[in-house]
Amino acid sequence: MLSTEEAGRLRVVLVRSRNPLNIGAAARAMSNFGFERLRVVRPYEAGFREARSAVDAAQVLRSAEEFEDVGAAVSDCSLVAGTAGGAQRTPREPLQRLEDAAQAIRTQLRAGSRVAILFGSEKVGLSNQDLSHCQLLLRIPTLYDHPSMNLGQAVAVVLYELVRQTDPGGPSAVNATPATAEGRERMTEVWIEALTVSGYTHHGPDATLEEKVRRLVRRLDLTAPDLHEWLGLLRRIVWKARQSKEQD
Amino acid sequence: MLSTEEAGRLRVVLVRSRNPLNIGAAARAMSNFGFERLRVVRPYEAGFREARSAVDAAQVLRSAEEFEDVGAAVSDCSLVAGTAGGAQRTPREPLQRLEDAAQAIRTQLRAGSRVAILFGSEKVGLSNQDLSHCQLLLRIPTLYDHPSMNLGQAVAVVLYELVRQTDPGGPSAVNATPATAEGRERMTEVWIEALTVSGYTHHGPDATLEEKVRRLVRRLDLTAPDLHEWLGLLRRIVWKARQSKEQD
Repeated sequence: MLSTEEAGRLRVVLVRSRNPLNIGAAARAMSNFGFERLRVVRPYEAGFREARSAVDAAQVLRSAEEFEDVGAAVSDCSLVAGTAGGAQRTPREPLQRLEDAAQAIRTQLRAGSRVAILFGSEKVGLSNQDLSHCQLLLRIPTLYDHPSMNLGQAVAVVLYELVRQTDPGGPSAVNATPATAEGRERMTEVWIEALTVSGYTHHGPDATLEEKVRRLVRRLDLTAPDLHEWLGLLRRIVWKARQSKEQD
Repeated sequence: MLSTEEAGRLRVVLVRSRNPLNIGAAARAMSNFGFERLRVVRPYEAGFREARSAVDAAQVLRSAEEFEDVGAAVSDCSLVAGTAGGAQRTPREPLQRLEDAAQAIRTQLRAGSRVAILFGSEKVGLSNQDLSHCQLLLRIPTLYDHPSMNLGQAVAVVLYELVRQTDPGGPSAVNATPATAEGRERMTEVWIEALTVSGYTHHGPDATLEEKVRRLVRRLDLTAPDLHEWLGLLRRIVWKARQSKEQD
């Protein structure tokens, strides 16, 4: 994860975007992943106005900065990365996998440098002129015969990749306490009881059945709370089966 | 990366989606990342028709399968994963980071099993009823105060995470064939039957109990052979309890 301060050094730069829905979607993804600094270069004016007036992600859009050209939009950034959509055939810049590029970007943000990531227009991507400002070009691993992503989705994927990494030591999913061997054994006993009163074994306790049930219960990989629940359900059934047994 | 065959085992399941643009965006992300099998559960009809008629990603949408409920949509899948949007406050299912969940999903796809990933509606996400079908719940690492992603963007991020990894080494441990959702549903039904004949529910079928049992069964993480064994044991008990019931 990036700290708020580190994330604050990233500029998402949309170059000649036309579709207001896409601009809105890009801003929303920024809010989702904790980035605030949106820059737009020569947006299609009507589209940009429309996107700004949308209700969600309003803060990111309201504070968006507008520029006349890419050079001005990235002038305060140390690292400038372009995104390769499907439109670029054979870019002259070195193409990096998103994962590797994200690593380089995080390193810069952590070192206190500002970084810009450029996203081209939906139709034609970034021009050679735009790319000439970029030190690296990142590629999202889309299929070669379906390479071109929707702009909002491309922004979401790139920002996700920047934040996804939980550095070692961070909290992972907290699982419930596993059941103890004692709990599992109680469960095994109640099952044997249920099967016995149900007439599953005709000759009383059966070592083979007991082993089989114990093995099955062990493989259930139960948590302590779940084991408690199952015992409750099972005991109800045993109680009923026992009534039946007594009536035999 | 996943092979074409492995990717072909994934089902993307959109539950009660309303917005045609989002359905179209989800389909487009599927095309971008090489997934083909889209399923929709009770989509908003007009929206679904509109999305189907959009020009891009037409193949994925044309072949989309439509279902009346989540159970039917996931019945042939061994692993069912839900996505946690911002709407769920404190889900009862264990919440996994997307990265960890993706690892589990890839393992299943490589082992030859079918996997479903459920995405809820834009407004309310997945219901508790929907979640009771899920073995794991994955969370995209959005900010806690801006958790709710656009549906098309969420699909793009999840599918990206599935394909991005260049795995070190070969496949991990292949376990016994996991039980399918259909098998688990049968187990749930037999338990409900056992509890009903044992008088656990006095007022006939009970939706809350059903959800509870489905969730407990799902968390057992059963293999197909073990599920078969448990069903055999349980049916014996039901048979006995039913005798008792008839004698009441």
